[in-house]
Amino acid sequence: MTSSDAGLLADQNPLPSGVDSRLREHLTFLIEVDQLKTVLRASPLAAADRRENDAEHSWHLALMVLTLAEYADEPIDVGHTMKLVVVHDLVEIYAGDTPIYDTELGESQQEREEAAADRLFGILPEDAGRALRALWDEFEARKTPEARFAKAMDRLQPLLLNWMAKGGTWRTPGVTAEAVRGRKAVIGEGSTKLWEAALELIDEGERRGWARS
Amino acid sequence: MTSSDAGLLADQNPLPSGVDSRLREHLTFLIEVDQLKTVLRASPLAAADRRENDAEHSWHLALMVLTLAEYADEPIDVGHTMKLVVVHDLVEIYAGDTPIYDTELGESQQEREEAAADRLFGILPEDAGRALRALWDEFEARKTPEARFAKAMDRLQPLLLNWMAKGGTWRTPGVTAEAVRGRKAVIGEGSTKLWEAALELIDEGERRGWARS
Repeated sequence: MTSSDAGLLADQNPLPSGVDSRLREHLTFLIEVDQLKTVLRASPLAAADRRENDAEHSWHLALMVLTLAEYADEPIDVGHTMKLVVVHDLVEIYAGDTPIYDTELGESQQEREEAAADRLFGILPEDAGRALRALWDEFEARKTPEARFAKAMDRLQPLLLNWMAKGGTWRTPGVTAEAVRGRKAVIGEGSTKLWEAALELIDEGERRGWARS
Repeated sequence: MTSSDAGLLADQNPLPSGVDSRLREHLTFLIEVDQLKTVLRASPLAAADRRENDAEHSWHLALMVLTLAEYADEPIDVGHTMKLVVVHDLVEIYAGDTPIYDTELGESQQEREEAAADRLFGILPEDAGRALRALWDEFEARKTPEARFAKAMDRLQPLLLNWMAKGGTWRTPGVTAEAVRGRKAVIGEGSTKLWEAALELIDEGERRGWARS
């Protein structure tokens, strides 16, 4: 990636020397992550004729956690779940977005994202980097109720956008309604009720020809 | 606004009838808020040559809360503070963004935003709408440590972007470095340390001619 060859974003205009070194590392990280706003996803927005970016998506998930927590099958700590979704896509700043129906890119995804995590969280003071890395690891592992619900939001959100687009990425060549159900089933690990609603949308989308039978 | 004349976004493609009425209200709200991604702010991105939108900004604040909480003058509940920043700009979906240096728009801001809050949070089931409205009210009132820190992030984030842009909105006609200090002083109500760093950036920006003396 250009960004990784070019050094850190903050190096283009170094912070004043009066900012002490620990805070400088925090702010350098917070400037670097501005790039999440430039990572495009496959999903189309409902509100405008363009694709969504990772920062917008992450904000939408955080609001979904706050709004839909009552549907979680197990009790969740809402604030902690919001932390998971706010950091969950950060590695894509260096690793790029891997569209859910792209099996070829999917094969190298874990390796690329682990390297990106080392580099990105390494910008922070060591203890702070470790704390954010732990949140990302928790999200990926899906072993806590919070991580399962966060992942459910990550799969439900583009489904709402695809519904509004009358198909959206469901129309990707080679993708069928059954494949969509397969990739979205993880919603049911966080919320039975939301998985039922997701199936309503996919089933109705298939009936209307927005997803292939 | 066109969006308010045109009814709800979800009305353009109603959800399947199998989704029950409470969840339907939740999802209708979550589709409606997709519009936050189309509300442009005055601030330029650091990572690309375009202005930032409210959804990107809100995500950035949430990550800043998580990263900078150690600098809060009073202990804060990080998860709760993240809730505040995730909802703080929602009313701009109907009320629009009010740039910080636009005093004319500033006069009507509160009235426009209150009406927007009534309408937007009214889409949700009553108890859920009340809960989100309470978060917005708390943010606006700045009476809790969490609200003060959230507001500090709201003022610090564009300052980082303006620094990276070598001026950005500091170059707005009629704005001086002293006016920037005045509008940003609220950072000091949440964090003495971050306010000191903010002053370093503004002072250095003034020395370099990025903000008028």
